[in-house]
Amino acid sequence: MLFIVWGSIMRVRHIKNINEKIKECSKIILNPIDYKGKWDTLFKNNNPIYLEIGMGKGKFIIENALKYPDINFIGCELCSSIIYKASKVMNNIENIFLINYDAYKLNDCFEKKEIGKIYLNFSDPWPKTRHEKRRLTSPGFIKVYESILANDGVIEFKTDNRHLFEYSVMKFNELNYEIIDLNLDLHCVEDVKNEEVIKTEYEEKFTELGNKIYYIKVRLKK
Amino acid sequence: MLFIVWGSIMRVRHIKNINEKIKECSKIILNPIDYKGKWDTLFKNNNPIYLEIGMGKGKFIIENALKYPDINFIGCELCSSIIYKASKVMNNIENIFLINYDAYKLNDCFEKKEIGKIYLNFSDPWPKTRHEKRRLTSPGFIKVYESILANDGVIEFKTDNRHLFEYSVMKFNELNYEIIDLNLDLHCVEDVKNEEVIKTEYEEKFTELGNKIYYIKVRLKK
Repeated sequence: MLFIVWGSIMRVRHIKNINEKIKECSKIILNPIDYKGKWDTLFKNNNPIYLEIGMGKGKFIIENALKYPDINFIGCELCSSIIYKASKVMNNIENIFLINYDAYKLNDCFEKKEIGKIYLNFSDPWPKTRHEKRRLTSPGFIKVYESILANDGVIEFKTDNRHLFEYSVMKFNELNYEIIDLNLDLHCVEDVKNEEVIKTEYEEKFTELGNKIYYIKVRLKK
Repeated sequence: MLFIVWGSIMRVRHIKNINEKIKECSKIILNPIDYKGKWDTLFKNNNPIYLEIGMGKGKFIIENALKYPDINFIGCELCSSIIYKASKVMNNIENIFLINYDAYKLNDCFEKKEIGKIYLNFSDPWPKTRHEKRRLTSPGFIKVYESILANDGVIEFKTDNRHLFEYSVMKFNELNYEIIDLNLDLHCVEDVKNEEVIKTEYEEKFTELGNKIYYIKVRLKK
């Protein structure tokens, strides 16, 4: 079965009674609205919160959580089967929780300035112009991110899709974002500094084939 | 002999008595300062003026001039031997003139708002950080362009150098430029719309090898 989800296109086996099963996962927060403005009570500390939107199977967020124990990570994923699968491998990681939520409504779940960083990894390109509003870097979504990001909060975006990347750079520029970093071949072997960048599952396979990953890091201009 | 010039690295045979020979070329304007604010008197019309900085052998500007007879083209090139060679093949084209001038001092030659468009094609990348100021898309140069560009005047920049391109996009973003168009593979065969883009000599050879050309078109935000 082919699921098209926020974040990536991936094959996922349909899981029976998924809604019931999700309720049993301690890592998936069923009512994220209840934690708006008080995620610190869930994480039991005041560390910064980094949010990955379209987290897929979770490799990226898990590796980040293990590498940066002083950051709290929240993974947002709209597809129930995918988030359920991801949740099974993170039970022992204290600084991760997941939400099965529509990214367009994230300000239901987070207070203004509550998020330190947003990651968008290999988002669905939605290539047709009539689907532009569904792209996770379209102005409607960017305004949502803006409403929950801290003053110096950044957005990091990676993709292998050239047209989506061109579109995204233009949108961030149009909406008054400062480009802090830009890399049109993130895993280029000559750029030693990027060797330690944490990759998504998709990114790892794609890079092995010798293809280029585009990367941009932005924050709202003051 | 290897000349490193504004705009490109190319092999040019040294020409004896070049300064004397340049004086005999009707297409090379020896005292461009004299035309500041009155280039219309040279072109004998009020058409918009488009300026290529680092024009090299001139293929790009000549093809543009032939294709767009209602635009006046000025090629700027610092290397005397290169500009001399280019000038020999454009004697019969009325809407081109050349200036053998330092791009950093272009506001000696042009009045405010006198230029409609600036082309930067395959500028020298100057990869070392200590040479940043020499890059034609460094802030110092961009401020010079700004001082001579018309209100809606645009800058079009093409290069095959990834690091120079990344740098340039970030600088245009930082200096409050709107990105009107962005293409990370200008001559991609799937992008039929770009088939008719006029190429420089270098671009033609490079594209034939299957390499990518990066392109950006910007104008100052209002």
